[in-house]
Amino acid sequence: MVQKNLIGPLAKYFDKCVDDEFYGESSWEKAESKFIKDTTNLVLSKSGITNKDIDFCFAGDLLNQCISSTFGLREINIPFFGIFGACSTFVEALILGSMSIDGNFANNVLCAVSSHFCSAEKQFRFPLELGNQRPPTSQWTVTGSGACILSKEGTGPYITHITPGKIVDMGIKDANNMGSAMAPGAIDTLIAHLADTSRSPDYYDAIITGDLGYIGRDIVLEIANSKGYNLKNNYNDCGILIFDKNKQDTHSGGSGCACSATVFSGYLYKELKNKRLKKLLLITTGALTNSTTSQQGESIPGIAHAVSIEM
Amino acid sequence: MVQKNLIGPLAKYFDKCVDDEFYGESSWEKAESKFIKDTTNLVLSKSGITNKDIDFCFAGDLLNQCISSTFGLREINIPFFGIFGACSTFVEALILGSMSIDGNFANNVLCAVSSHFCSAEKQFRFPLELGNQRPPTSQWTVTGSGACILSKEGTGPYITHITPGKIVDMGIKDANNMGSAMAPGAIDTLIAHLADTSRSPDYYDAIITGDLGYIGRDIVLEIANSKGYNLKNNYNDCGILIFDKNKQDTHSGGSGCACSATVFSGYLYKELKNKRLKKLLLITTGALTNSTTSQQGESIPGIAHAVSIEM
Repeated sequence: MVQKNLIGPLAKYFDKCVDDEFYGESSWEKAESKFIKDTTNLVLSKSGITNKDIDFCFAGDLLNQCISSTFGLREINIPFFGIFGACSTFVEALILGSMSIDGNFANNVLCAVSSHFCSAEKQFRFPLELGNQRPPTSQWTVTGSGACILSKEGTGPYITHITPGKIVDMGIKDANNMGSAMAPGAIDTLIAHLADTSRSPDYYDAIITGDLGYIGRDIVLEIANSKGYNLKNNYNDCGILIFDKNKQDTHSGGSGCACSATVFSGYLYKELKNKRLKKLLLITTGALTNSTTSQQGESIPGIAHAVSIEM
Repeated sequence: MVQKNLIGPLAKYFDKCVDDEFYGESSWEKAESKFIKDTTNLVLSKSGITNKDIDFCFAGDLLNQCISSTFGLREINIPFFGIFGACSTFVEALILGSMSIDGNFANNVLCAVSSHFCSAEKQFRFPLELGNQRPPTSQWTVTGSGACILSKEGTGPYITHITPGKIVDMGIKDANNMGSAMAPGAIDTLIAHLADTSRSPDYYDAIITGDLGYIGRDIVLEIANSKGYNLKNNYNDCGILIFDKNKQDTHSGGSGCACSATVFSGYLYKELKNKRLKKLLLITTGALTNSTTSQQGESIPGIAHAVSIEM
């Protein structure tokens, strides 16, 4: 479910595209909560699994105290784990959900995240009413929600490996250049994954990062190359995939928890299901910052979590 | 590790009591980060386990985007799961850590949380400089940090059962009465735990909730009684245990992630280790709210997570 993306390249893959940033609500925060609520109801409905048969819910978002997910899902009546990995939250949920299923604690797990351009800008940067000019390095928070259900039984695609990331802080301080802040974390997790699995990048049909955008993507390509990994043939980023650079004025690309979650749940999942994609490494990336730390002169720590998904 | 608690009833149990709310830093947020950093270094040092042998870290706090834990632990170099359950975060970490160990994904897991009265008041209520009068229902956020390491091997105490909670919202809207907002969640999780394990409350030497304080504790006792559970002999709350009602002007008691984490890690853990306590049900409680939702007229959803710990 993505808002205002009718001209975006992935619009046809999404269950629903919405043209009202308030989504019929009185605030952006309430709209975002409604996005995650409707998206989880939709995935439950499409799966044929009732919420009584879901053992755990893992959910999070970018808003202070994760209010989009807690308010959006407060009536869901499923044991609830709130998680926060900034824009990496979607794969954090997949990792924790996978472990709880593989460890025999759950049969079905719901993973859901959301983000909203307006609620995020208001909270992390400036009031939208100011009409601030955005620098070319900035990214556009995806307004929407993505959700999935992990099950012990099924016909795939399957999560085969998990690689939770470490926090990596390379000293980037520009809150309008998140791609640069998050790229080192993505590289760290990618290399940890390849080393742990003794794989080379070409094992995968696609290696997709969360929301590094154009600038972060280029940094990943360059650092990977300097470390002997060639990613040129199969690497892309959800922040690049989700928007049309020429038609949509989104500068360095998309970001937000919903960026990787909608690109995966809407597009990549269907590519896996249709076997156009058989081996995917999904690495979501997060900037662990807020407006207070920026004002206090802190740098922006990044993190990236990876799952290997095969059909 | 708890700040300014030298007159508190549990002071002698804590590794360190600190008298400077800035802890030598230039802001309360940085002080809180230093609390969680020093506490995790201390628990690593006391355990004799190096951070290379810790597989995962689960951590969280009350600050926007969980910056206390992410900045405090950004150099720890351990795969990191950020979690958010408000004041229930400590047991959320214990639950996720236990599952990852029991599911054979980890041998050692670090769980750490923090809170700080000043950073929390500033963020959730009013600037401290205003000197607002606090109503009798209000609680005092514990300034400090608690951490523990869960291990596959060891001599106990052992986590034997986990009961992650559902979100429960009974419509309480008073941000100065968190005990009332969280008590229904605590009851829901307690009853789920007792039903799942076919236990009665007297199975436990102690049932301890996270930070309901005096008002929340009384609500739990009353609702439990109305549902046929007698908790009068073995039930107490970390928010009551941590402060001296007569000597410390903390109204309805303590709160914050560090409330249950310091009471457990400092006091209850030692009681278990010394076998003065053999069967403990620890239920941490969280209010899933922020200042925006309060301003937008929303009620306060609560959540509670439980672990059964035996020696």
